[in-house]
This record gives sequence, structure tokens and C-alpha cells, in this order.
Amino acid sequence: MINKLIDKIKKTNAPIVVGLDPMLSYIPSQILERAFKEYGETLEGAAEAIWQFNKGIVDATCDLIPAVKPQIAMYEQFGIPGLMAYKKTIDYCKEKDLIVIGDIKRGDIGSTSAAYAVGHLGHVQVGSRSYAGFDEDFATVNPYLGSDGVKPFIDVCKEEKKGLFILVKTSNPSSGEFQDRMIDGRPLYEWVGEKVAQWGEEHMGGSYSYVGAVVGATYPEMGKVLRKIMPKTFILVPGYGAQGGKGADLVHFFNEDGLGAIVNSSRGIIAAYKQEKYASAGEENYGEASRMAVKDMIEDIDHALSSR
Amino acid sequence: MINKLIDKIKKTNAPIVVGLDPMLSYIPSQILERAFKEYGETLEGAAEAIWQFNKGIVDATCDLIPAVKPQIAMYEQFGIPGLMAYKKTIDYCKEKDLIVIGDIKRGDIGSTSAAYAVGHLGHVQVGSRSYAGFDEDFATVNPYLGSDGVKPFIDVCKEEKKGLFILVKTSNPSSGEFQDRMIDGRPLYEWVGEKVAQWGEEHMGGSYSYVGAVVGATYPEMGKVLRKIMPKTFILVPGYGAQGGKGADLVHFFNEDGLGAIVNSSRGIIAAYKQEKYASAGEENYGEASRMAVKDMIEDIDHALSSR
Repeated sequence: MINKLIDKIKKTNAPIVVGLDPMLSYIPSQILERAFKEYGETLEGAAEAIWQFNKGIVDATCDLIPAVKPQIAMYEQFGIPGLMAYKKTIDYCKEKDLIVIGDIKRGDIGSTSAAYAVGHLGHVQVGSRSYAGFDEDFATVNPYLGSDGVKPFIDVCKEEKKGLFILVKTSNPSSGEFQDRMIDGRPLYEWVGEKVAQWGEEHMGGSYSYVGAVVGATYPEMGKVLRKIMPKTFILVPGYGAQGGKGADLVHFFNEDGLGAIVNSSRGIIAAYKQEKYASAGEENYGEASRMAVKDMIEDIDHALSSR
Repeated sequence: MINKLIDKIKKTNAPIVVGLDPMLSYIPSQILERAFKEYGETLEGAAEAIWQFNKGIVDATCDLIPAVKPQIAMYEQFGIPGLMAYKKTIDYCKEKDLIVIGDIKRGDIGSTSAAYAVGHLGHVQVGSRSYAGFDEDFATVNPYLGSDGVKPFIDVCKEEKKGLFILVKTSNPSSGEFQDRMIDGRPLYEWVGEKVAQWGEEHMGGSYSYVGAVVGATYPEMGKVLRKIMPKTFILVPGYGAQGGKGADLVHFFNEDGLGAIVNSSRGIIAAYKQEKYASAGEENYGEASRMAVKDMIEDIDHALSSR
């Protein structure tokens, strides 16, 4: 799957991923009204609105981008109907030949991580048959529990030809509270990064590993160091746009080959129609606004990479 | 909710929680067959079997115990139908007046943690109405992202009178890989424990905080230290039984008042009928075997606590 991701990035010339993290407040009123008319102001109504909203964005951008990253929490908050919209979104994106990175940040003791891995990336056995519960292509994983919490995910990826992005340095303001603490003269995130590089070397796709890392765009200097510690690791970079990261901050996350990183933007793309810059299309053409924002993001990153 | 938990522990004299972590291999054949007959060897069939299995255990043990802890991964692996069985299990346990600790180990950047908190412990707004998606009483939380990943959970708990258990030192063999690394002369888990104690002091129920901690039974010496670092923190202690923890290992997790800890056993209780000791009841009376295992566990802990 990492090779497919790289191929698609080369084809689109877009090392970016659109974060499908819908909030009801992002959804144009006509979509909300239609969903509430059909299902009432219920969890089902919210789920329908989210799904229709996602569909509009995917339809408007799928030829420009290699991948999407739905954040499962934004669906899980609406209970079972929300998770059904998550699954529907995954299936639709895969139909459109987009790679789906499930931003699930799971991680637990071995046997429990194995269940998550099977449910999200693999197949679960039921009697003589087997089923894919959610079937994302990649998943994000939390490393706090150590190797035996991560290995079951890697095992399933190996079997199913899928991939991971393991949290190394997250984009949020207080990520440093534990991640930056110094251990034998180096911050924790570097030790985690080293571990990710080690897991990765044992699990290579082609020139990159299918065990990737998450490093926030909001910490470019740390990204520079981590790039060196994990040379064959693909880095998923959240925090671009709404969280404050800019194209120029991103260059150090990439290798000399122009690869090695994929940058996520969520709000900046999916709620683009709310920005003055893209507002002219009007709320009903929110997909068009997202498309313009995707093009601008690709150009911003391309410009930053070619002028380094 | 922490006060209700303490009241129930006192009433049952059982500082224990039954981990509802069903695997299909634990489920007696007649339950599996009945479910597969009705739904086929499908995700729905697996979910039905899990639900019926859980119901049998809850019915057989609910008068003896204060709380249950369903591990969401064991349901999530069966996709949407699995999560419907998770929700059904939560609702049924609450009907039986059991406290439900959702072992979800979520944690993300602020806005995303807020969505998880709302979905699992709070109410999500849909137009003019609000809904509880999963509605557990407590949830487990991963602290790797720092304060702004944890605070949204605390905020929802404050509003909804619910509670948390934050991972400090987990029970798995490789938990030390990052958690035990020394920072300024003390292991990371102590720093996390200190933070949990600090969050807790600002969010007290009565004599204990509704911001609790997770510390594995498999590391009793560390439990001893953490007990002192977090005097007002309730500790959820996994790893008893199948993972290797024994009653005698547990005494240091408790305070002098006999409170402050709640010990989880999953496989040791729910699959008790598979142990030689409880096999006499027969597979079809698996609930009876679980009841005997619960009684033995209560006695083991009671004995350990009274002989300290």
C-alpha cells in the first residue's frame, strides 16, 4: 500500500491528504436541512448530513489528490449512526480509488491491539468465513504501550499489504509535555522515532517502509531532525493550514527525492467555502471551494519544495 | 460517578471489575450455533453471540460486583455490528445498575479528544437536540498527547458527572519501553502519574478524584510508588489473573482506607468455565463458573488486604 501511495503522489504531484473531519458547523445549511427533513434532528440525521457533505468534497477533489484521512472521532461522536457514515465514507473513497488513512490513533496491550488491527486493516474470522470490519488502507497508532502494542498492527499490515503511521511528535500545543522530555540527552519523540525507523526497516515496501510516522507541521525543526532519524519512513504531517503550519515549514519533512512526507489539511480544505478567499462560489458550491483550496495547497507545497 | 463507584464497592465489598472482552473462542458452542443459525456466519452472527454471552455473565454476576469494563476493541473488530453489541452491552449493564468503564484508550489533539469525550461520556448536539452516543460512565484515556488531549475529557466528565482512568503504567510486557525511560532521575510513568494527580486534585468527587489512573497489576513495586504519588487517585488495575497478577501483588495499590483501587479480571472470569477448577458446571453453565470465579477473586483480594 505504501508503494501505491507513492505512485499516486507522483501521478497527482500532490503529497497531500484531505482530512475528512466533518463538524456539523462546517456543513452547508441546505445539506443539513435535507438530512434533518428526512431523518429528523437525530444521530441518523447528523450521519446522513456528514456523509452527503463528504461525498460532495470527495467528488470535487478526488482527481487531484492521492488520499483522504477521515478522523474517526468526528464520526464516533454520533454513536453507531456516525460510525456507519465513517464506513460509508471509506467505501466511497475506495471506489473513487483514493487511499484511505483511518485516523484512529488506537493502541493497547498485544491481544487488544490485534483486535483493533484486524477490525480496521484486516479480516476477522467468524466461523468458516472472514470479514473486513472497516477496511481502511492505513491506520494511525499510538505508541505509548511499546512494541507489543504496535507489533500486532504491523503483522496485519504485512499480511494484508496495508500500512501504519505511528505517532511520534503530534501537532498540538501541549504535545511537548511528555514527548519533549529529555531521556539520556534526547527528547522522548526521538526515541520513539528511532523505534519507528527500526520497525520500518524490517518492513519495507520498496524504497520506503509501510510503517510510517506522524510528525506535526507545527514543529518544523523537530521534523528536520526526525527526517534524519527515520530516512526510510513516510511521514504523515498534520497541522498544515488551520493549525498554523505553512508550506515553507514543510520542506524539511521531505527527502531529497521529493518524497517521504504527505501533508494533511482538514478544516482548511473541507470548510474552505467559509474563508473569504473562497467564499465567492457560495455555500452551495462548497465542493468547488474545496477544490480551489486543494489546488492552492498543492501549489504552496510545490513552490516550497522547488525553491529549497 | 466516582462516589457512586465507591459506594458500590463498599456495598459489595468487591473492589473488582469484570472485563467484558469476549473472544469468539470463549463463547460456548451452543450460543455460537444459535447465533449463526439465526444470522449466519456473519458479523451480525458474531455480534449476536457476543451479546448473548455477555448477558449470561452479567446476569450471573451483577449482584456481586460494582462494575464492568467492556474492551471496545473486542467489539470494534466485528465492525458496525460489533459496536452495536458494545452499545447493547453498555445499556444492559446500566439497566442492571452496574457502572460501565468503557476501555476505549482514546486520546488525540484537543478538538478531536472533545469529539471522543462527547461521544463516549457526554451528549452531542444535533440541531436543537442532544444525544448520548455510547454513554459509558467512565472511559480510559491515553496521555501521550499531553494536557490538551486530556482536558476535553475532564471537561465533559465535570459536566456530566462521569470519570476517567488515564494510562500511567500499563500491564503489558513491553510497557517499559517508553514508560520506564528515566527523565531527570525518574521514570516517565511517574511524571505522568504526577500529572494525573494534579489534574485529579482540581477535580475531586469526595475523598477521591474522578480523574483516575491505570496501573498494571503486573508491576506491583511501581504501583506502590504511584500510590504515594497519586494519593487521591482511584487506580484501575488490569493484569490480574490471566496476565499474571495475584492478590498479594495488589495490596500496595490500595490506600489504608481499603479503597483507591479497582482490580480488573477479564479472561479469568468470563472464560472461567474453561479452567479445570470451574469446569464441573459444564459449558452451558458458563455463567455459574464466572460467578464462582468472581467469588474467588473477591476472597483472594479480601484475604490479601486483611492480612497486610
